[in-house]
This record gives sequence, structure tokens and C-alpha cells, in this order.
Amino acid sequence: MSQDFSRLWSPRGVAVLGASGRESSLGQAPVRYLDRNGYQGAIYPINPGYEEILGYPCYPSVSACPGPVDLALVMVSAEKVPQALEDCAAKGIRFAVILASGFAESGKEGAQRQAEMIAQAAARGLTLIGPNCIGLVNPHVSLVAGFSPLFAKAEFQAGEIGLVTQSGALGYGIVSLALERGLHFSRVINTGNEASLISADVVEDLLLDDVTRVVLVYNEELRSPRRWIDLARLSLERGKPIIMLKVGRSEAGARAAASHTAALAGDDRILDAAFRQLGIIRAQDIDELLDLASAFRQPRLPRGNRVGVLTTSGGAGIMAADGCSAWGLTLPELTGETRTVLERHIPSFGSAFNPVDVTAQVIADREVFRSCLRQMAQDGGLDAIIVSFCVLTGESADRTVQDVLAVAAQTDKPVLISKTGADSLAPQARRDLLTGGIPVFDTPVQVARALGALLRFRQAAGRSGAVAALSAYARETGQNGPASEGFPQPGTTLSERETKTLLAAHGLPVTREILATSAGEAVKAAESIGYPVVLKIESSDILHKTEAGGVVLGLSSAAAVRAAYSRITDSARAYHPSIHIRGVLVQEQVQGGVEALVGVVPSSFGPVLTVGCGGVMVEVMRDVAMRLLPIDQAEAAAMIDELRMAPLLRGVRGRPVADEEALVKTLFMVSSLTDRFPGRWELDLNPVVVLPRGQGVRVVDALLITHQTAGGAH
Amino acid sequence: MSQDFSRLWSPRGVAVLGASGRESSLGQAPVRYLDRNGYQGAIYPINPGYEEILGYPCYPSVSACPGPVDLALVMVSAEKVPQALEDCAAKGIRFAVILASGFAESGKEGAQRQAEMIAQAAARGLTLIGPNCIGLVNPHVSLVAGFSPLFAKAEFQAGEIGLVTQSGALGYGIVSLALERGLHFSRVINTGNEASLISADVVEDLLLDDVTRVVLVYNEELRSPRRWIDLARLSLERGKPIIMLKVGRSEAGARAAASHTAALAGDDRILDAAFRQLGIIRAQDIDELLDLASAFRQPRLPRGNRVGVLTTSGGAGIMAADGCSAWGLTLPELTGETRTVLERHIPSFGSAFNPVDVTAQVIADREVFRSCLRQMAQDGGLDAIIVSFCVLTGESADRTVQDVLAVAAQTDKPVLISKTGADSLAPQARRDLLTGGIPVFDTPVQVARALGALLRFRQAAGRSGAVAALSAYARETGQNGPASEGFPQPGTTLSERETKTLLAAHGLPVTREILATSAGEAVKAAESIGYPVVLKIESSDILHKTEAGGVVLGLSSAAAVRAAYSRITDSARAYHPSIHIRGVLVQEQVQGGVEALVGVVPSSFGPVLTVGCGGVMVEVMRDVAMRLLPIDQAEAAAMIDELRMAPLLRGVRGRPVADEEALVKTLFMVSSLTDRFPGRWELDLNPVVVLPRGQGVRVVDALLITHQTAGGAH
Repeated sequence: MSQDFSRLWSPRGVAVLGASGRESSLGQAPVRYLDRNGYQGAIYPINPGYEEILGYPCYPSVSACPGPVDLALVMVSAEKVPQALEDCAAKGIRFAVILASGFAESGKEGAQRQAEMIAQAAARGLTLIGPNCIGLVNPHVSLVAGFSPLFAKAEFQAGEIGLVTQSGALGYGIVSLALERGLHFSRVINTGNEASLISADVVEDLLLDDVTRVVLVYNEELRSPRRWIDLARLSLERGKPIIMLKVGRSEAGARAAASHTAALAGDDRILDAAFRQLGIIRAQDIDELLDLASAFRQPRLPRGNRVGVLTTSGGAGIMAADGCSAWGLTLPELTGETRTVLERHIPSFGSAFNPVDVTAQVIADREVFRSCLRQMAQDGGLDAIIVSFCVLTGESADRTVQDVLAVAAQTDKPVLISKTGADSLAPQARRDLLTGGIPVFDTPVQVARALGALLRFRQAAGRSGAVAALSAYARETGQNGPASEGFPQPGTTLSERETKTLLAAHGLPVTREILATSAGEAVKAAESIGYPVVLKIESSDILHKTEAGGVVLGLSSAAAVRAAYSRITDSARAYHPSIHIRGVLVQEQVQGGVEALVGVVPSSFGPVLTVGCGGVMVEVMRDVAMRLLPIDQAEAAAMIDELRMAPLLRGVRGRPVADEEALVKTLFMVSSLTDRFPGRWELDLNPVVVLPRGQGVRVVDALLITHQTAGGAH
Repeated sequence: MSQDFSRLWSPRGVAVLGASGRESSLGQAPVRYLDRNGYQGAIYPINPGYEEILGYPCYPSVSACPGPVDLALVMVSAEKVPQALEDCAAKGIRFAVILASGFAESGKEGAQRQAEMIAQAAARGLTLIGPNCIGLVNPHVSLVAGFSPLFAKAEFQAGEIGLVTQSGALGYGIVSLALERGLHFSRVINTGNEASLISADVVEDLLLDDVTRVVLVYNEELRSPRRWIDLARLSLERGKPIIMLKVGRSEAGARAAASHTAALAGDDRILDAAFRQLGIIRAQDIDELLDLASAFRQPRLPRGNRVGVLTTSGGAGIMAADGCSAWGLTLPELTGETRTVLERHIPSFGSAFNPVDVTAQVIADREVFRSCLRQMAQDGGLDAIIVSFCVLTGESADRTVQDVLAVAAQTDKPVLISKTGADSLAPQARRDLLTGGIPVFDTPVQVARALGALLRFRQAAGRSGAVAALSAYARETGQNGPASEGFPQPGTTLSERETKTLLAAHGLPVTREILATSAGEAVKAAESIGYPVVLKIESSDILHKTEAGGVVLGLSSAAAVRAAYSRITDSARAYHPSIHIRGVLVQEQVQGGVEALVGVVPSSFGPVLTVGCGGVMVEVMRDVAMRLLPIDQAEAAAMIDELRMAPLLRGVRGRPVADEEALVKTLFMVSSLTDRFPGRWELDLNPVVVLPRGQGVRVVDALLITHQTAGGAH
């Protein structure tokens, strides 16, 4: 399935269609940038109006180029693009970067033009990059193809970071900030409007290549969301993280995203949950994106969350500890042996406790500093080491950096540095650390954040089987479309009773209940179920039973049931005069327990399971955990762990411990439903009462709605 | 009350006690740094062993210095400090920086030495800075007094940012990162162990001086917390923000803080709430600290939260919108006039909607760019302007910067820039913007965060009256100590009934209730109160009534009350055989309503009020708002606004709207109690039932504990 992009990244020849001979014109820029950055393949300016441009022979059309051409940079105006693409196809070109604007981003006419261009390219076997984009870079072959102003000044070096960006200007802004930090790229591409080539295509290629170590993505609209499930699987298998800056988070931002790419915003909360589950790391800002790129350039991941912090400043140690705590890391006590070694060396105004403050005095003595650091690196109770320096200067900085590198070479634990001080004080320090594969950050909090991300990726890799299962599910249901045997047709809303009947048939524990069509039947039903009971109107004409006076709780005698039966049917008729009443549901009244909500909603990633605090609290507290389906029981248990309400289930203030195991089983069974019925449907179980341990759960109210199926997955 | 620090910041002469003649020794460093940075006052090395050091005559003792000396840098070892201080006092020196270690930070003996030194200094009228510190800087007179390695390389320029830091190494690391960003200081001081001079002393001086515009504080342990209330008042009155990086946030961090400064960690949650209320801005990391310093260097604050975003990249616009939304800012629609002007200039692939994407094409045309920006700056519907650039380069960057400065000069709205691109691409841009008073940031999210802080400070200034009231309260109660007339003695725990009697006497709406000492009395009481009632055991021997079987709810008849009376007293005796039972409380049963919690706890800032979701939910959901007391009704209402449970009070899913006004009044009345009884006490009202609108609230359970008073305020 994966496309071969080798000719895109390493074209034998690059043609610039619409190249201009005018000095410093936009049309001349791509030729100048290819030249300036030392591209070794053939460079062919194409323009019937010039003989040569910047010393390169200029050809009237692509077909006239003497050698093979694999990549076309299309600078001609939007109206001339169709002819240009015909020429490219005839020359055997497979990749065309549409640098021109005037397509979907600029209104209706442009959108029409874009649609025609896509059809043409598909018919001719051309892969389009863009339109409305500014090109790509492959520093490994000095290919700088496009027209960002950055290309006139940047010093690209072959690196290991891949970047796929929908925004050109912002994307190359990110590149320029990265280069300033000494971070280098394996590939950069701006996908623009993503008319044909989409981010997912390139990300797949970067995950599979042999030069990229970490894949950065800047994204405004995630096309083909379900494909990202498989990319996540691949990322975990290859041990290459995907780190995404997905913008359009806020309502205001989402509105801007819509007007910018003419696309609907996804539900950001589902996206967050899906990414966490899949091990795709979401960065909040450019700063974090680059910090994480720096952390993942090196291959070591911590085996656990136990961090040893060594610092020359008590303050930096406290900050690192704060940061670790915020990012799910702990600072355990050091082993006795480690403490003994540290205490031998550290003066009285330092600290041999974690965070370890060796003091600036120790750092001045190479042997001592190395001994302390080596001892911590060897401590079996630590999974990673943070070293936090302040104001390293000059020669002493260089020595210290060498010491860190030497110790890091003797361990397989990740070693991360914070260096709170200007680079100008120790110009080599950052570069030497990066070259040695040691990530370096400005502040102790940033270093903790980066280490936290390394840990999360490691933990996600531990769940790669579950992610593979999600991927298989997405692939199968994407191909087969919704199955419906034994399931209501799309566009159906089931009543409480119908929903529960379906749930019960699949083993879910619903309340005992009997439909009665007379007061006498209701009393008989109540006696068979046992008092107290609840009566509920059963009619597909009423969605909100309580509002219509259609629910009465706590009925403990035949007389009460009889009275309630009349009251309910009268209220319902008053509420809705032409109502069709199927009867009244007589239901066991579930007493005690904790109210939870369990629900399924369809999303662009597939079905999403929600569990949370039930009843009215779900809307107020928004205490919910979400996962893409299907999940296994371990993941179901992890969902409950995430809830703030978890202590309610585990007994708080002398309350009984609830049957959490039964709730886990319920989540798993609901997940299994999506396996059997992979269509777009919505299930709302609220409340699900979790009874005391050993007594299970009861689905007290339930609603199932099947949706009309949206178009097939991309 | 404020101390005169003019001789500290601008000493006529500086003596370096223990200066060394040995090349590049630590003992020589302070002399070298004073010299290198061009200090214009007299420099006196003091050491009987040398004739001269680095060209300065060296004196055997301070008394031998020929001119006046205002500042002593004490480098001698800890044991020799007492004699050195005697000499300083004799010479009339008022300020001594104790650069030496070996005091409280290094164990018991050091703590003893520190205590003696403090007593000596106090007796001699000497203000000590440190010990365990590395000095101070006043760039306005080129005074660089101390021994950070930074002092050998830094280029200090007179600036407007003040920094007070407890940590020396980290503090000067922050300074070095600031200088690298082009931010300059008015004053820097490292307060170290704060044996005599504490951070609050210097912050007060910086708030009052004429050169500092923004006060940064790095703090591990906040000494004299109540004094910060008055500093906050001063900050708001002077329009100078205090921005604090307060570390030791996490449990692990707090442990590190304790071992580092031998101090107990404060309650971080109370600190957060207090700072928000007081308008002290808390930064999470060094990066944010410096971003906010940059934002507050210029004096403009937004009048409201309406932001216009102008960008050359759609992506940057979306990021800015995301950031604004996260930081409490909105992007309103632009006025028709503004849109008309924008639409005239912006090409079809841009956007004339907020965030406005003028495109890179527009920026190339000075006139057009200026027109667009000017029009937005003039839009009456906007309170601030964010301009987000990407990859500004060379000459075009310099032109654009001049255009921004020109438009900014014509408006009084804050204009903030993000510039996603390396500084090396446009070396002048950042400097020119900063010089022109325009804050500049790397990313659109950072610019939104900074603007959000400007807005919060403006909003805090609007509450300066309330902060002044807090300050007056802290001052009065700090001086008078706890009053106790009409209030239980310290160390008392009142029963529910006693607490409610006290509350009722101060007008708080408690449940109706009568103490009965026999079943017959209980029935009489129930009939006078009206059924249903609750019975509760009344005995100071039982704290947890429910556990002891001491509470029965929902009693609706004389027979039921009679039976419950026996049951309760029997259970209580079974639970606690030697119990003294005062009787049984017969209480109205409050029906319906929303359960809230209202509580007061003492803290290092004074009494703190808490309101939140009541009952068992308070522990599980931790949905609470906190304020220092006293507060006015507006602040009480603002507390309720903060709660996630607020919709429960305002009617959700057809629930009745609750009497929020009565809850506000209750909070205000509880606040008034702290006015009348300013001691250290703890009040727990849980639940307070908020009845439907018009029916008020009822305090259903209540507990008051008065604490032994801690030592006087610092």
C-alpha cells in the first residue's frame, strides 16, 4: 500500500516550470535556491522566454529537457497548470509541487479548478504536492525545492528529524527555529491544501525510511483520521515517535481552521484521547515540538518513571523535581551505596538526597564530578538521569560536557541536560552535547517535560498489540462498511426497552423489567420482580420520559403501582395528546451503588467509548475517560483509573467498595458490540449503577441510535 | 516602614573582605568583576597579606579604608565573619553581603552560627544579605558585586527589570538567558538564606523606585507571607507587576525545598488562589517568567479581552486564536469598516476575518501593510493587537518592523509580536522592536499567554480596593493578635449544636433544631419543628456521628421519633460505653436543594475561605474555589462562578434554579466572622443546602475548631 517516494526525495532532475530570468523575482527563486544549496541532480528552468537562467540552460517545455526529470516545481499561474501537468506526465514525471495559489483556499472557482486538477493528475499517474504550498527539502542530497525566504539563508545539514507541515510559512518558521537550536532535518515537506498527497502519505514514508528518527507534524485538519491509527501502529513498531502540533484546538481556532482550509474541525477532546491511546504525542506549542524532537533524536527510552536528578544548584534541583512531578515522573530515594559515594564527595552545603546538589565546588573537580554522576547512572533504582547546570562558562563548561558524554557512554539510561544559561557563555557546550546524542534544554522544567514524553512513548510501545488491534479493526470496518445483521437499520432510534433487549441478548446486565399494558398486569409484573419497583412510560413518541411525567420511582405496594399506572398514562396523554402508548415498563428499582455513564459515539477515528460519572453530574463535572474501540479489559480498567470519581467506586468515607470489576467487564462487552456491529451508532447507558462488590452492575436506562453511514473512509 | 536601600544599590565605596591576590582565585573574583564592569565608586580589597590586588591598594582592615564605605562583600570563612562584621559596623557600613557558606544550609552548627550572626548584625544596625548568596548587580551605576561566573562575561546595560532571587546559581542563569533575549535589568539581588534581608524587603524597594518597571521574583520559600498582601497592594497601586517563579510546587519539589532551605513548604493550592486574588502573577517556568518580563516592560494594558490578530500565515493565525482562547482572550468579529478596508487589500487566498491573514504578498507592500494594521489598531471593538510573522528576513524584516513601530505609536492599545523564525535571519528585528517598546515572542501561543497576563494584571488593578482591604486586615490582625471576646478559647472544638448557635447569633441560616433529653421531649420538638425531622446524637465524646449510629433521617411521625430516640442513644452507648450524652438534637430535615461546602482554614496568609461541591463529592471532585479573607460580595459571587458545579445551582436538565444569592450572602457573612474574630480557627459547614431561589440556604452540619495561635507574624 505504501507509495514509493524515492524519486520525490532524490529526483534525478528537477524542472522549474515558469522559472523567471528577472533578477530576484519570485519566479527565479526556486532555481536560485536549488543552485545555492548545492543540489547535485540536474536543474532545468522551463520558460520559452529565456535562453538561460542563473547559468542553467532554459528549456521551452519540460519535454525538451535532455535528461530524466522526476520532480516538477510548478510556478505557472493557476490557469496554466493543466497544460503544465500534461507536459509533466508526457515526460514521465511522477511528482509535481504546485507552488501556485488560486485553488481551494481562494473561493469557489479555485475549488472547482482544484477538483479538475486532482482528476487530471489521478488520470495521468501524477502525485501532486500542494497546491498553495512552498516546497520540500531533503538535506541528505542538498535538495531545497521551493521558495521560502528561509531557503536564501538557511544552512541545511543532513539530520534525523522529519517534518510534514500543512502550513508553509509557519512550517518553515519552525524549521528556522530548529536550525538555530542545532537540530537538523532528514526531510521537510509542506503539503499545503493536500489536494492529492496528504500528510499521512508522507508520515508513512518517513516512518519506513532509514534516515528519519522522529517525525514532526504540523496539522490544521487531519485528513483520513482512521489511517493515523495504522500510522501509530507503525510508529510503535518502528520505535519512531510521531509528534504532532495539531492546531485549531479552541472554538475560535477551529473557526479559523475552517475558513483557512475549508474543512470542519474535529472534536478536539476525542483527538486528545485517541492520540494518547495510540502513542501519538501531541505538542502544545512550537517550543515543545522542538524540545521533544531534541529528546527523541537519541534512541534511549526510560524503562520506568524513576529519575535521578543531579544539579549544581539547589534551586534547579527543586525545579526539576517540580517538573518531574508534573510529568508523571518520580524522584526515588537513592540506594545506600549511591548515597555513600555522594556523601564522600559533596560538601555540607550540598545535598546527597535526590535531587542531588553536588554544588558548583564539585563540578570544578573532574574526578569527583564524574564519580558522582557515574554512581547515579549505575544506581539500579533509577531509570533516567537529569543533569541540571546553571551558567556553565568557557573551558570549565567544555570539560564538564566531556565528563557528561563519557559517563553517558557507559550507561544505557537516557541522560538529559538542562543548562540554564546563555549559549554565548559556552558556545560549544550545546553543540557538543547534541553531537554526542545528549538532549539539552534551557530549563529544568523543560527537561522533565521531554523525559515525560520519552516515558509515555515507551509505555505506548508496551501497548503496541492493542494499537495493532485498533488498526486491524479500522482496516476491516473501513473496507466492509457497516454490518447490520441482528442490528437496527441506520437511522433508527430504539426505546429504552428495545435497547435493553438488544443489550441483554449480548450479555449485558440490564434491570429486570416487564412491559405491562394494564394496571393489573403492572401489579402482577411488580410482584414477580419484587418491590420496590419503578414505572416508566413505553412509547417511541416520547424521548424525555421524566419531562412528560412518565417515570415514577419507589413503588412498594400493589396499590401504589396501580395508582402510578394511571398517573403515568394520564400524564403522557396530557403531554402528547395523539401519543401511541405501548404500555408501561415495570422495572426493578436498583438501590445503592454508584451512578456511572457508559456511552459510545461515532467519530472520524471510528467508535469512541466514554465512561464517567453518571446522572446529572456527567454534564456538570465532565469527569469522563475516552478510548477508541475496540479495547481489551486492561484498557477498560485504565479508563476507570483516569476518573476523578474512581475513589467513589473504591470506597470513600466508609462507603462500600463497588463492583469495579463488573464495570470493567461491561466496558469490554460494549466494546465487543462494536466488533460485531461496526457501523456508526450511538449508545447512551446512563445511569449504569455499580453495586457493591460481588453484586455486579445494572444498566438502568439505555438509548441506541443508529446513524446514516457517512461516505467510505478515505 | 520601608527601608532605605540607596546605599546598598549605589554605595560610595565597596570593601571586599578576604580579597585574594592569587590570580583567578575565587577570592579575587569580586574585585575583578567590580573592576571589569566599570564600577565608578571606590573599590577596597581588604586583606592584611597583600599590598595591592589588580591595581587597587589593599588594606589590612576595613577601618583603614581612606573613604566612606557603604557595602561590604564578606568573603572570609564562616568563623571569621563575626570579627569582620564588627569591623564593618565600626566603619559605619550598613550593608554586608555574606558570600561565605557554612551557615543554616550546612547543618546544625551552621544554623547556630547564623543565629549568632543575625543577633550581632541587628545589634550593630547592619543589614545582612545572604549568607549563602552570590551578590547583587545595579547596572544603572555599573555595580557588579559578587562572584557569579556570569560576571566575567555578561554585558549589563541599564534596564527596567528587577529580579530578587533566593537561588544564586539559578538566578544568574535566568539573568543570562534574559540578556541573551535583549532584556535588561534595573536591579538584581540574590538573597540566599535570607537570614536578615528577605525577598519582601527588596521587592518593596523595587516597587517604590523610579527605574524598575516589572519585579521578577524567584522563590523557594515565601518568608512573611502576610507581608506579600501589602506588597500586592503596592504593586497594583504603582502599576508594577510582581511576577513570581515560586518553586517547590510538587510534593517531591517541596521535599527538596525543605532540605534546601530548612523550611516547611506552604500549601501550594492556597498560594495559587492567594496570588490570583492579589494580582501577583505566578510563572510556571523560566521561559514564561522572561516572556512576561518582556510583556510588562511596556506600560500598556488591554482594556478588555478582545484581540485582533493580524498575520502573514493562516497557520500562525490559528495558533494565535488557540492561544487566546486558552488564556481568556477572544477574537471578536471586526467592524464592517475594518473589514471593508482589509478586503480592499487582501488577496483571495488570505482572510479578512479575525484572525486576519494578510498573506506574505501584502507584507511586501509597505503602504498596504500599514493600512491594514492601522485600521485594526483603530477598530473600536478591539482592546489589543497581536501581529504574528513567520520567517522575517533581511531588509524586508527591518522595513516591516519600522511599520509596526509607526502604527503602534499612533495607538494606545498594546501591540505584541510573534516572530516564528530564527533571529539570525533578521538580526535587527528583535532588538528594534524591544527598543521601540514592542514585546516580541517566538510563537503565537507565547504571545497570547503574555497578553493574557497583561489582561489579568489590569483586572487585578480593578480590584485594588479589595486588595487594600485585605492588606489592612492583615496589618491589623498581625498587630493585635487574635481577639476572643464572644468566641471560644484557642484549642476548643465545638459540637454541631454549639457551632450552629454561634453561627445563628451572627445571622447565618442554620437548620431549626431543639435539644431533647427524653423521647417525649423529642416528639414535642419534632411537632414544633414540623415533620419530617432528623435526629442526631449530641455528645462531645463523638466526632463522627454517623459511624456511631448517631444519626437517623426522614422521621415522619411521633412513633418514628420515639423509636429513633432509643435507637440512637443505644447505639451511641454501644459505640462508646462511658459516653456522656447531652441529649438528642431534633432537626428539621432539609429537602431538595444543592449540597455545597463552605469552610475556613487558617493559613500563613491569614484565614482562607473555601466554597465547593458539598457532601462526599468535595473530596472526590475537589471542585472548590478559595480566597483570602475578608472578601466582599462581588468576590463571593466570583468564587461561585469558578466552580464546575455552578450549573447545578443555575438549573441544569430541568432542575430548579437555586438560591445562589443566599449562598453569596452566606460566604460574605462567614467572611465577616473573620473580621470579628481574627484568630486561627477552622470552620467546616458541610453540607450547606442551597434551596430553590427565594428559599435561602440551610447550614445542615457544622464544626468549629479554634487553634492554638502560632508565633507572631514576621
